[in-house]
Amino acid sequence: MTHPKFKRLPKHIGVIPDGNRRWAVGQGLPKQDGYRRGLEPGMMLYELCLELGIPELTFYGFTQDNTKRPAVQTRAFQKACVDAVRMLANRDAALLVIGDYDSPLFPRELLEFKERKTFGRGLIKINFLVNYGWKWDLNHLMRDSLMAGKGGSRNVIQYIASRDISRVDLIIRWGGRRRLSGFLPVQSIYSDFYVLDDLWPDFKKEHFYEAMQWYENQDVTLGG
Amino acid sequence: MTHPKFKRLPKHIGVIPDGNRRWAVGQGLPKQDGYRRGLEPGMMLYELCLELGIPELTFYGFTQDNTKRPAVQTRAFQKACVDAVRMLANRDAALLVIGDYDSPLFPRELLEFKERKTFGRGLIKINFLVNYGWKWDLNHLMRDSLMAGKGGSRNVIQYIASRDISRVDLIIRWGGRRRLSGFLPVQSIYSDFYVLDDLWPDFKKEHFYEAMQWYENQDVTLGG
Repeated sequence: MTHPKFKRLPKHIGVIPDGNRRWAVGQGLPKQDGYRRGLEPGMMLYELCLELGIPELTFYGFTQDNTKRPAVQTRAFQKACVDAVRMLANRDAALLVIGDYDSPLFPRELLEFKERKTFGRGLIKINFLVNYGWKWDLNHLMRDSLMAGKGGSRNVIQYIASRDISRVDLIIRWGGRRRLSGFLPVQSIYSDFYVLDDLWPDFKKEHFYEAMQWYENQDVTLGG
Repeated sequence: MTHPKFKRLPKHIGVIPDGNRRWAVGQGLPKQDGYRRGLEPGMMLYELCLELGIPELTFYGFTQDNTKRPAVQTRAFQKACVDAVRMLANRDAALLVIGDYDSPLFPRELLEFKERKTFGRGLIKINFLVNYGWKWDLNHLMRDSLMAGKGGSRNVIQYIASRDISRVDLIIRWGGRRRLSGFLPVQSIYSDFYVLDDLWPDFKKEHFYEAMQWYENQDVTLGG
């Protein structure tokens, strides 16, 4: 397969796959039917990242905020996350699932991915945020630093719950909203943020290339 | 004075006034000369917020990351911050300066604003981030929760260094970069993010109204 050449690539892409419910409504379907239409785009995106040699990819599965939605929707996005991880567990990937494992809203089937598991040649690290909450993530700062007795340490990142996820270079959000909605606040500090108006189930590979073309022309300053 | 009517207003606006150095270079001036050209736009923005009745405004002054720049630039943005706070201290505003007070890079003249000081009728809360660092902010989570012995608490916000700054509804960034660059990671979790390509010294009130018009058409979900 051929793809455009880029002079500079992100090492880690974060994906906010928004717009599933709006897509379903637009099709005259119940809102919860939108989520399973997000699986195929996720696989396409995985393939595109693999082709370009992107080393790490994080999907925003669902959040603790999201679980305040009607139960039928919650069940639908839980299932979509389980299916997505299973689909990738047959491919070349090193999978990690991060979220509040202790809550009944965390799908049992994904507990085995609390530690990163490598499949095939493990060509790409893929992280799924599942029942993730930014408060849950940052609360570990308090809890773990307390246990370690290192309250004065300067290294914030080593104490958050999502410490096994690296800094995100580029966040791509589908569905038009220009906000992070709690996505990895620490790893997103310096991220470039690209928003597509298209809804996630309408994913096209051109969206991805458009984001990559934009990204290659950004400078990296890390706040300096 | 007249201004457009908006059906929905943000309660708290964050401002990332980027592009001062690029503006100076474009004018054939030394980079550090750009910073003082950011004062007048700041006053204009304050006036516009006052007219609309916006209750809180946070300016990104300078960060600990920024102080890695050449000393002549660091001195220039330190001075611009001191001047900005002094200009507003003669107006109707309740001023607070947040940043690493213990560092020699924090301007001594601003220490009196560690606690919020009200001037005139105190019509608007204005926060300045001065020698601010996201790590510095979050490190208080570790330190203060340790001292309070409340490591298991769920209330992250009450332990960060910037706890006196409320959640930001709308962040407006000048200078074209689509990134937060460490701006209040906790308060920005749900913020809508509007980016203008114009450089901050080229501020026009139309930029502000454009951002407000965009904002009034966003929905507020707080991640739900």
